[in-house]
Amino acid sequence: MSDKYKGRVTIPTDATFIDGTKKYIKMWGADAIRDCDGVSLPKGAKDIFGCDVYKAYFIVREDREYAKKHPEYFQNVAVTTERKLALSSTLDIDLFEDIFKESLEVNLERKEHFWQVYDRTLGIEVKDWEYLGNNIVRIRNTIPYHEYTVNFFARNIWDPVQVYNYFSNDWKDVPHDLDIDPIYEEALNHMLERMEKWCIDNPDITVVRFTTFFYNFFIIYKNGKTQSHWDWHTYAMSASPKMFDEFKKEFGYEVTLEDIVTAGTYASRFEIPSETTRKYIDMVQRKCCAWAKMFVDIVHKYGKKAMMFDGDHRIGTEPYNPYFPSIGLDAVVGAPHSGPYIRLLSDMTGIKYKEGRLNPYFFPNECPSDELGVQYLKNNYQSERRALLKKPIDRIGFGGYLKLADTYPSFCKLIKEVCDEFREIRENVDESGSFNFVKVAIISYWGKQNSWMFNGNFTDDTKPETAGYGTLFNAICAEPVDVSFISFDDVISNKILLNSFDVLINTGLSGTSFQGDYYWKNEILLTKIREYVRNGGGFVGIGDPSGYLFQGKYFQLGDILGVEKENGFTYSKNKFFDNINPVHWITDGLDMSRVRFSPRPGTIYPQGATVLYCSINANDPTQNTVQGGNTFLAVNEYGKGRSIYCSGLFDSHEAFRLVYKMLLWAAGKEGEYKKALSSNPVVDCYYYEKKNAYALLNNVSTTQKTIFYDIEGKEKEMTLEGYAIKWIKIEG
Amino acid sequence: MSDKYKGRVTIPTDATFIDGTKKYIKMWGADAIRDCDGVSLPKGAKDIFGCDVYKAYFIVREDREYAKKHPEYFQNVAVTTERKLALSSTLDIDLFEDIFKESLEVNLERKEHFWQVYDRTLGIEVKDWEYLGNNIVRIRNTIPYHEYTVNFFARNIWDPVQVYNYFSNDWKDVPHDLDIDPIYEEALNHMLERMEKWCIDNPDITVVRFTTFFYNFFIIYKNGKTQSHWDWHTYAMSASPKMFDEFKKEFGYEVTLEDIVTAGTYASRFEIPSETTRKYIDMVQRKCCAWAKMFVDIVHKYGKKAMMFDGDHRIGTEPYNPYFPSIGLDAVVGAPHSGPYIRLLSDMTGIKYKEGRLNPYFFPNECPSDELGVQYLKNNYQSERRALLKKPIDRIGFGGYLKLADTYPSFCKLIKEVCDEFREIRENVDESGSFNFVKVAIISYWGKQNSWMFNGNFTDDTKPETAGYGTLFNAICAEPVDVSFISFDDVISNKILLNSFDVLINTGLSGTSFQGDYYWKNEILLTKIREYVRNGGGFVGIGDPSGYLFQGKYFQLGDILGVEKENGFTYSKNKFFDNINPVHWITDGLDMSRVRFSPRPGTIYPQGATVLYCSINANDPTQNTVQGGNTFLAVNEYGKGRSIYCSGLFDSHEAFRLVYKMLLWAAGKEGEYKKALSSNPVVDCYYYEKKNAYALLNNVSTTQKTIFYDIEGKEKEMTLEGYAIKWIKIEG
Repeated sequence: MSDKYKGRVTIPTDATFIDGTKKYIKMWGADAIRDCDGVSLPKGAKDIFGCDVYKAYFIVREDREYAKKHPEYFQNVAVTTERKLALSSTLDIDLFEDIFKESLEVNLERKEHFWQVYDRTLGIEVKDWEYLGNNIVRIRNTIPYHEYTVNFFARNIWDPVQVYNYFSNDWKDVPHDLDIDPIYEEALNHMLERMEKWCIDNPDITVVRFTTFFYNFFIIYKNGKTQSHWDWHTYAMSASPKMFDEFKKEFGYEVTLEDIVTAGTYASRFEIPSETTRKYIDMVQRKCCAWAKMFVDIVHKYGKKAMMFDGDHRIGTEPYNPYFPSIGLDAVVGAPHSGPYIRLLSDMTGIKYKEGRLNPYFFPNECPSDELGVQYLKNNYQSERRALLKKPIDRIGFGGYLKLADTYPSFCKLIKEVCDEFREIRENVDESGSFNFVKVAIISYWGKQNSWMFNGNFTDDTKPETAGYGTLFNAICAEPVDVSFISFDDVISNKILLNSFDVLINTGLSGTSFQGDYYWKNEILLTKIREYVRNGGGFVGIGDPSGYLFQGKYFQLGDILGVEKENGFTYSKNKFFDNINPVHWITDGLDMSRVRFSPRPGTIYPQGATVLYCSINANDPTQNTVQGGNTFLAVNEYGKGRSIYCSGLFDSHEAFRLVYKMLLWAAGKEGEYKKALSSNPVVDCYYYEKKNAYALLNNVSTTQKTIFYDIEGKEKEMTLEGYAIKWIKIEG
Repeated sequence: MSDKYKGRVTIPTDATFIDGTKKYIKMWGADAIRDCDGVSLPKGAKDIFGCDVYKAYFIVREDREYAKKHPEYFQNVAVTTERKLALSSTLDIDLFEDIFKESLEVNLERKEHFWQVYDRTLGIEVKDWEYLGNNIVRIRNTIPYHEYTVNFFARNIWDPVQVYNYFSNDWKDVPHDLDIDPIYEEALNHMLERMEKWCIDNPDITVVRFTTFFYNFFIIYKNGKTQSHWDWHTYAMSASPKMFDEFKKEFGYEVTLEDIVTAGTYASRFEIPSETTRKYIDMVQRKCCAWAKMFVDIVHKYGKKAMMFDGDHRIGTEPYNPYFPSIGLDAVVGAPHSGPYIRLLSDMTGIKYKEGRLNPYFFPNECPSDELGVQYLKNNYQSERRALLKKPIDRIGFGGYLKLADTYPSFCKLIKEVCDEFREIRENVDESGSFNFVKVAIISYWGKQNSWMFNGNFTDDTKPETAGYGTLFNAICAEPVDVSFISFDDVISNKILLNSFDVLINTGLSGTSFQGDYYWKNEILLTKIREYVRNGGGFVGIGDPSGYLFQGKYFQLGDILGVEKENGFTYSKNKFFDNINPVHWITDGLDMSRVRFSPRPGTIYPQGATVLYCSINANDPTQNTVQGGNTFLAVNEYGKGRSIYCSGLFDSHEAFRLVYKMLLWAAGKEGEYKKALSSNPVVDCYYYEKKNAYALLNNVSTTQKTIFYDIEGKEKEMTLEGYAIKWIKIEG
């Protein structure tokens, strides 16, 4: 049995703060130290501190000497210009008109072959152009008042993360990092040699923290501004003439710049990619994971562990890409902000352990005082605890200047408490997590590849448009729900059978890859889901589930949901809100005044469903036939199955509980509700079957009373102090 | 000069209330009487009252004896069933499962030729079906879990307006009216003979009030409910086997039921019709107008006037259809509720005069007391006055039981005041209306055909979804703005030249015919509008102007507007709200606290425009790069032209004034603003050039002060009592 007071914690160190480091290793029970931007590891750190030593390693961007000698191996980026209007039959486009010129330069390699000029008004490529030099492309025979763009390769002449720091953190005098590209065999070999040499030169380092591997996520900078694009999922920075050649070799036809830049949306993961784009992504993933394995193998050869930080140069080695487990990494470290982000980490497979670097960094901007440090860390950790008790990660860590933290006594005390509680959780809860009563699948275009990353740019940075959908994830990251992310193609191809789940969920913003867009006219998909629900499956739709206007109908599974959406062409069809009844098992016992529904999806009206909540006053007879009524929550039966429509929810503990009850009801498992449950929605209950133990978690600062139901439904009244965790072990 | 106290007014009479009628003819200055549902004209009415006598005439629905003998001439309706799910390889569909069976019966004529069975899951027609009798269609070789519908002809066995009264007004014991169809030559000849006979038999009647002509707008009734569809614009009730034969004869190919029912949306006018559907509509219009002319010619032959009530059987003879003037009608009467509806009437061409039947009817349900009668009439009339002063109709009228009105003394007194004021307006303002400072065109798919009918089911019954767009119409119906409704095809075909307008406007709900949907990828349209604005034209977009996702861009004229919409694929593109400045000529001097913008269109961000109003706080530097910011009002310059984006507005006098200033600014005519203007937006000012006269209209109940600017800009302070009209004549 490990010690509650020792282990599972990584802290930053500093060559000029050795005694301080020792003090905090002891106080916080750390068993690993790390370096950080701005501070270096003391020589002989392993022996000084007697613990694991992490060091960040940058494969592509740190070897400036080599890079300077080999500009031919610089990384590239696929770029398209802003649209420019033709006013006559000739149009000159300055490729870098809007672009921060210190970060990129045009790559003229085989430009006639790779570059593309598009008439965006017609949506067609035009061929009558030439490069005038000085970043200018001249297009001839342009049609006046049509808009044109140029797709081209640019060489990356400054590492994009450094450019970010140049703009955001005023890194004015730092020598420029230059990213070299493993697609060139010689460059790759050089990087491998350097890795090997580094391992030999750094016997002290026990854990190599790759930050990250090869290709940066897509950032591009505008003149005098911050980023114009910032996309953690886009492959524009993996593209190069050589990579395109590899595609041709593998698939027998050309991938083009347009497949990568897609008219300026840069194949956003919210967009269902073309077949070629998807093949390209897959190829890059395969290559990157194979290369990453070479580096990891070297690290292992020298008896070190290999860890990946899930950031920066993550393209191609994303932890949910299908080739990721083949890398053979020991660990992934992420920087969670929320319950769903914890699950993003804890659900990863193919690695030995997962670490979460908690916020705030010990940097003056992120942690400006003792008091604010306490506040930020509490916010960060408390938003994660619900998910940690459900399915924990293995380690936590901190970053920044330990010397700064040392000046904040309350903050340091809180860190100790957090470390102790985290260890307690992790010792009590193994990686299989707590017991589940219901098994759900969330269906989208991406399926597993975008597990827990539904709404925002990364995980939990929900966009205003998608806020109403985020509550689902905030609920199920902690509830007794087994969650799978499956793709439409998984279902269509029979790779995954729907009847292995109790409930299927569709959500996400209309028209996007997550919601499904044109997949909702795929008859195989529709047929399989109908068959599944009619035979007893559950279907829960949030927002615009199965929405795609086809054959006069918007919700293609409106027959299952029992609701339809006004699609602009059915204003003259009367809408009958003649079955409104808020009394239902799923809302029974909940304080619905604390549940706020999203009005976003618009005019949703019943066609068979029982409406529980809507914008119509059920007691006003003049309102039972109305235009413009919004349905917020409705239930329906379909054969032996059940469905629920919900417009969207905003976060509250009651809303989380409502989600759980929706899932249980849709699964026909109401009988499981009062088992391993806290009657008070502010208190979460977790059941750990192997240990026959429970945890109760109070999510708020005030003392809470609740009725605790054990796995057999036996009740017991409990009281929990503010934010307390109560462990209940049943003997025998 | 006519008399302020006499003329331009029609009132109902009653054979049992002759003296009363005389009393009100005198009191209200009526010069015409009419019959009404529930009361009959006295014999010799013309001589008794010495004025025009209107009588409603029903061409297709009143001749029950003839109809009973000729069920083969009954009118038909194109119907599609609700979708039904196949659970095995055979599916039976009851054509009348949801339909009120007393209103329709299946028409088996050449059913194998006309009827269509659709697999709506695949969107294709299937042929393996048979009619089993008893309204049942059996489909074989169905695919389990696919949805099917049947398109079929049904015979109309009860006039739809009567069915409406059966459900809504409890007309249980009325003999059923049966609608016969002029598409059958013999039936048409019979109807014409009856018309002629009726003219001979009714020498007393001076004005025949057609209610209306041939085909009812689309109403279909569900079992035990009110209407399931209610569409004033849909052609389903004009369809019949014979009409389809005529189409084949004329165009050489078949129109099908699917062209009319369009998967259940019944070719809603919000949907851009297919070419075939549009040809069908055009053919029906041509036929109906030609037939209508035959009836009008008979009426004229007997020295009577012919008036059309714009309601009920209006399909094919709509006043803005291109063949309408050829009918040769003397007048149209409508039932206005608002300023735009007044303009719908007063802008009609091809007739001699326009009449508005004011609300409320003198029926107990619509006018239940003296007090409520006063309230309803005030609301109705006051909402119309702004437009009457702009461009008047020629007559007003009332309907219902005069005996009932006689019991309401205040109501009768108010009617007198309304009649006197209306006459005063009409005598002072001729049909050319007041002076305009700016000439605008509103562009949509329908153009002139749907003048002033943009938002709701008819004119002014705005849907919740389109409420934010209605303010434009409420503003320009009364402002010094010359309004044209033009179609995309008018512009594309050069039938109408954009440079004949100062400002082009695009508005309406995204994806609909009014907003334009896929027309916004028509390069000729885009090119013409760009050329027009660059050369000095104005463009005003409200809501989703030019919105259609194509080539990664949503607002296809985003280059003109200087704004773009988050389309779901550009979350990773940063939005810079770096040019927010509410100080602008268009809002200068307005109390903007009284202007409410619609948040509906969503995330609209600037790309070149100056943002005047948005959801971002311009003083908070952390907000200048944001996701999810909504732009409410933005201005842009484009070559020599100007554009304005507005998300939508809700009604207020300040919002109306803002619209006017937007149009003037877009037209580059700020210099015309302080001419023929009231500085106070609650007071409207009208200038009548020929008479060198002005009217000032106080729209509220309280006394208002304002500065009146004459046409040369000379100022004068004025005070107007509540609701007063002040006439100002300039001598010389």
